[in-house]
Amino acid sequence: MSFEVLKSDGFARYGKLALAHGNVETPVFMPVGTYGVVKTQTPNELKALGTQILLGNTYHLYLRPGLELLKQFGGLHSFMGWDGPILTDSGGFQVFSLGPLRKMTEEGVLFRSPLNGDEIFLTPELSAEIQQVIGSDIAMVLDECISLPAKSQDVENAVRRSARWAERFFRVPTKVGQKRYAILQGGTSLAFRKLSWELTCGFPMDGLAIGGLSVGEPHHEMIHVLEGLAPLLPPHLPHYLMGVGTPRDILEAIRCGVDQFDCVLPTRNARNGGFFTPHGLLNIRNSEYKLDPKPIDENCGCECCQNYSRAYLRHLFQVKEILGCRLATTHNLYYYHSFLKEIRDSIKAGNFAAFYKTKKAQLTEAYPDKWERSQIENTDKE
Amino acid sequence: MSFEVLKSDGFARYGKLALAHGNVETPVFMPVGTYGVVKTQTPNELKALGTQILLGNTYHLYLRPGLELLKQFGGLHSFMGWDGPILTDSGGFQVFSLGPLRKMTEEGVLFRSPLNGDEIFLTPELSAEIQQVIGSDIAMVLDECISLPAKSQDVENAVRRSARWAERFFRVPTKVGQKRYAILQGGTSLAFRKLSWELTCGFPMDGLAIGGLSVGEPHHEMIHVLEGLAPLLPPHLPHYLMGVGTPRDILEAIRCGVDQFDCVLPTRNARNGGFFTPHGLLNIRNSEYKLDPKPIDENCGCECCQNYSRAYLRHLFQVKEILGCRLATTHNLYYYHSFLKEIRDSIKAGNFAAFYKTKKAQLTEAYPDKWERSQIENTDKE
Repeated sequence: MSFEVLKSDGFARYGKLALAHGNVETPVFMPVGTYGVVKTQTPNELKALGTQILLGNTYHLYLRPGLELLKQFGGLHSFMGWDGPILTDSGGFQVFSLGPLRKMTEEGVLFRSPLNGDEIFLTPELSAEIQQVIGSDIAMVLDECISLPAKSQDVENAVRRSARWAERFFRVPTKVGQKRYAILQGGTSLAFRKLSWELTCGFPMDGLAIGGLSVGEPHHEMIHVLEGLAPLLPPHLPHYLMGVGTPRDILEAIRCGVDQFDCVLPTRNARNGGFFTPHGLLNIRNSEYKLDPKPIDENCGCECCQNYSRAYLRHLFQVKEILGCRLATTHNLYYYHSFLKEIRDSIKAGNFAAFYKTKKAQLTEAYPDKWERSQIENTDKE
Repeated sequence: MSFEVLKSDGFARYGKLALAHGNVETPVFMPVGTYGVVKTQTPNELKALGTQILLGNTYHLYLRPGLELLKQFGGLHSFMGWDGPILTDSGGFQVFSLGPLRKMTEEGVLFRSPLNGDEIFLTPELSAEIQQVIGSDIAMVLDECISLPAKSQDVENAVRRSARWAERFFRVPTKVGQKRYAILQGGTSLAFRKLSWELTCGFPMDGLAIGGLSVGEPHHEMIHVLEGLAPLLPPHLPHYLMGVGTPRDILEAIRCGVDQFDCVLPTRNARNGGFFTPHGLLNIRNSEYKLDPKPIDENCGCECCQNYSRAYLRHLFQVKEILGCRLATTHNLYYYHSFLKEIRDSIKAGNFAAFYKTKKAQLTEAYPDKWERSQIENTDKE
């Protein structure tokens, strides 16, 4: 068994995911390492922060460093020096984000390389091949993403085409040691989500992802979909909510049975001087921190909070010193990983319901809806 | 005794410099931490790389974070979290580099803040005061720097004015625990260098710096000055060659009795993809490294060479990932510190003359004159 649910509490699960490069405790947050690096961090540092599994972006890795180099190094693990598990997306999301620069057909997506203008034709088969060269522990099917709100017919078309593409993807012979996840589409309509599952459930998937959320819809609509899906998700498979999200999104999704998350929020906010704290996002550029000798969060055990004042961190951002982004990334990833660990512990202890209630109240105050939406950009490029 | 020569070999010395924040083994290389940070590196990392003492730039620290913040934190050590020794320059070099934006008078230098246009009047007394607020272990006198080549009269004027400014600087009462170094000027003329020493030798200095070299003159002229000065330098004081230099410059200067160095070369080259190696500067952007699985230097023990290939490092620079600059900085500082340690060991072992001969031949091939000059820019801003 490559995935085991060790403890449940309502729909929330604590589990173990056995992958080619090691075991992962779930629910888990996967930092985004677009180009074979989580910005500013070394693999050893990521491990020390509690990172169990990284996400790599197939689209970006295909462009740079490209397949030749990845083949020579026997895959991304050896190239970047990370020996833990890696999940790769299919490249579809980035290609769809190109907008008018790409052309959709039933066969695949045609686009031009932003680097040299070369025509590239991304198909389910090519996506599978690239992910095999990358050598990720988990590969994702190529699906058709649409942004929300969308016309009902467009949502249904995307659901049906994604299923046809999934069929082609799963026809590609597997690479030994690589798991493959299917993806549910269907926007915010539960009916289309169910249709997506019906069209997809026959494929030999190792996990199931929920795609096409956090792409412009209000927070409560996303939660509504997750609540509706919770009883329908196959309990023996890991569930991965793609591109999500804020601490509050993650808490809600875990209540609905989600096991895996990835998001650029901790790393991207870090580069803009945004530090995640239990009291909300602290923007270190604000002048109120100019003379502040306190750490970002007095209760945080990360290297940044143990060693540096808000005043010094603000100074680093003022003078555009790289160490500022670096320490902010350290802090934010520590925050996310610690938050997920707290949640895992609460499920293990059979205490998730109470934990959820307290934490939801705190997070709703600290990270109001308006903040959440304004922070999420519709791309997962790091 | 705050400085002890423990072993000599010709003019080369191995010594110990006792400072308020710890002892320093000399000869020593001091990384440049312009704004209270050595770019990309944490204080703990700097220590692990072998850094014994940092250089801070008074001009930049005066502008940002400024005296108010430094006062509140009780100085730069506590502000940046570095508990080892710090040397500060006087701010003069940067102000003179402003060119037409500043106005020289006997009283001091008038310039406008590039941040907000405020008029600032830098005098020997103000420089002393700022360095006291910074709380450096070693403060430098304000001198008049000129670029080379220069007219004889200009060189002499700078020598005489620097001496008058030194007198004013040393009249400012010392701060407990802070050493103060005088600076020799005089361009490439040994006669003016001697005049500078005669006018300066009466001040209560704890160390003597050689300023105004590596400011545009050919390598052999700099060495000529150093060779001429070697027998004149007071043997009981530490000798600091400001803003120098390449590995070869440093080797030559140590042969002439120099004990301390600072330079932006290792850190600035790092950010441009330049890695110091025994075989010359390796520019990782070159396409020849695209598929190269070797480390930068197979014999190097640094974190970068122990973990990453040239191909991966090149990729990081291609995609503009900060980790690339970071690993290059790590490597280059390790290279410089290891090089200085090798030299110290050779002096301790009474073996410097032979070491010098072998190393000079290697470095002359690896770092030819043309390279040296083209790499040095006439500013020590990092």
